[in-house]
Amino acid sequence: MAVNVAVVGATGAVGEEFLRILESRKFPVKELRLLASKRSAGKKMRFCGRDYTVQELTKHSFEGIKIALFSAGASISREYVPYAIASGAVCVDNSSAFRMDDDVPLVVPEVNPQDIAKHHGVIANPNCSTIQMVVALKPIHDAARIKRIVVSTYQAVSGAGLKAIDELQKETASILSGQEGFRRNLFPHQIAFNVLPQIPQNNAFLPNGYTSEEMKMVSETKKILGDNSVRVTATTVRVPVIRSHSESINIETEKKISAAAVKKLLSTAPGVQVADDPANQLYPLATMATGRDEVFVGRIREDESLDHGINLWVVSDNVRKGAALNAIQIAEKLL
Amino acid sequence: MAVNVAVVGATGAVGEEFLRILESRKFPVKELRLLASKRSAGKKMRFCGRDYTVQELTKHSFEGIKIALFSAGASISREYVPYAIASGAVCVDNSSAFRMDDDVPLVVPEVNPQDIAKHHGVIANPNCSTIQMVVALKPIHDAARIKRIVVSTYQAVSGAGLKAIDELQKETASILSGQEGFRRNLFPHQIAFNVLPQIPQNNAFLPNGYTSEEMKMVSETKKILGDNSVRVTATTVRVPVIRSHSESINIETEKKISAAAVKKLLSTAPGVQVADDPANQLYPLATMATGRDEVFVGRIREDESLDHGINLWVVSDNVRKGAALNAIQIAEKLL
Repeated sequence: MAVNVAVVGATGAVGEEFLRILESRKFPVKELRLLASKRSAGKKMRFCGRDYTVQELTKHSFEGIKIALFSAGASISREYVPYAIASGAVCVDNSSAFRMDDDVPLVVPEVNPQDIAKHHGVIANPNCSTIQMVVALKPIHDAARIKRIVVSTYQAVSGAGLKAIDELQKETASILSGQEGFRRNLFPHQIAFNVLPQIPQNNAFLPNGYTSEEMKMVSETKKILGDNSVRVTATTVRVPVIRSHSESINIETEKKISAAAVKKLLSTAPGVQVADDPANQLYPLATMATGRDEVFVGRIREDESLDHGINLWVVSDNVRKGAALNAIQIAEKLL
Repeated sequence: MAVNVAVVGATGAVGEEFLRILESRKFPVKELRLLASKRSAGKKMRFCGRDYTVQELTKHSFEGIKIALFSAGASISREYVPYAIASGAVCVDNSSAFRMDDDVPLVVPEVNPQDIAKHHGVIANPNCSTIQMVVALKPIHDAARIKRIVVSTYQAVSGAGLKAIDELQKETASILSGQEGFRRNLFPHQIAFNVLPQIPQNNAFLPNGYTSEEMKMVSETKKILGDNSVRVTATTVRVPVIRSHSESINIETEKKISAAAVKKLLSTAPGVQVADDPANQLYPLATMATGRDEVFVGRIREDESLDHGINLWVVSDNVRKGAALNAIQIAEKLL
């Protein structure tokens, strides 16, 4: 049964991906309403061979809408999700606005689909770097109980939007051509041929010295796994990659689990693709994951510094599984 | 008192840096002998305002030489260091050939200068990623005893030589201009706008699933700190950066030590520059460290997943402190 769908933030990196995935997965769309800021209103976007005109987001935008996909930042979600709910829509929200609210489910369909049913009009989509980590770790947590996670990320600039991709490309070209005086608008430091240990780039650090991205990986992981006893520490880093986040993950488990057992477990895990054949230089790469649905896992090896430890290398498309795909998977389960 | 100095591998990335640093530190060079493969023989290189002709390396190259700086790979070192010693030279070797030999000191002058005196003709220079880590961690180890280290690296392509820099730049330009079919000679996968969890790029993985670079960080750290009880696990990753390695380091200490105490300790530590003012978006960056002698440390914060844990972000110039500078500092202490 087809339903009316609204996309809030349609012209952004995730918004564009929403349209591609709704189309390719044949999501049962009856009417599609594309919403964005006044500045983007009037723009045309293509969906299933037809042009759609982007409309300005207002509190009246949600009449008749059944599913509203939000990806326009936390303040837009805070303001407009209540109107969408009042209009009778169920919202899947990509922002951090409601993620840690007790009465809002935070869902990765491969991990905690059962939480969807508990919603009161809004289901939160987790942070991109958290999603790919929990997809890879859930089967290990079930088998051996994860006590502690130490994660360092290698995150693509697309996580900061289309303007960030443009800035990386232009700054890179400027450096290669030997020009000086490139003017940055977005990143506080050079991102071309450099790595920045600050995500998001425009946010203040918290009093404990961590970034909000790092603390999201801590708190969201516990909520999605439904286990507050899992201890997490994170360092999140922007690298000059266009798309797909890589993560170096170290875990300590309660029960002993071998690298071979982890590999076997993950080879049948939902949403996971094991890419782990070092002899043939096969391991997950951003270039491999881009445009793909799966979370790629490789470099699976026992941590020799612990009795019960495993190291893994996890890569996934941050715009796809890290955002648009995960939200649409939630919407599919809602229907 | 000036001495005769030979540089083996003079035309490489580290060789070029040797000449710059010998000159800028006014190392007391009497005669300078530049040695390289037959292919590079005849090339001219400038030192202190004079041109020197590169000579072919042979077993007779070391007559009259007092200090021989080797940076031409492990197999060249294994073959020619014995001739240099037989000629009466003391060798400082940048390769991995002798690092783990029991009778060869492995030295970072800020950490274990006392080991230099134990040499029998050769002193090994550690791996670049290990050097910057132990410079940052030694003061913490002395104050609070480090029990375990989890490190993930973000390593520049210059660690793979001048050809790797060229390949990254050419591949990047090719991708930006939309050309297809770029032919790689060095890296097994795209390095432009990508990250590769394999260092070195041309080496087989070990039976335990780790790379040789990762295991060097484990074994060399213990040897330099003179403490086999320190447990280390590493994931080493190549990023599309020209120069300077970044490292995300997580440590567990025996004694409780606060982030403020670590910051204070490191602010007076030899060879360390604390760059840690998040409110002003100040943290170590590859662009900040390049061409500098210091190991930059920032993002110092308590690991809330442990009773006694600290996270740090450590960046240093891999060609300079990670190779040429460290070797010349050893040579200075030898004189």
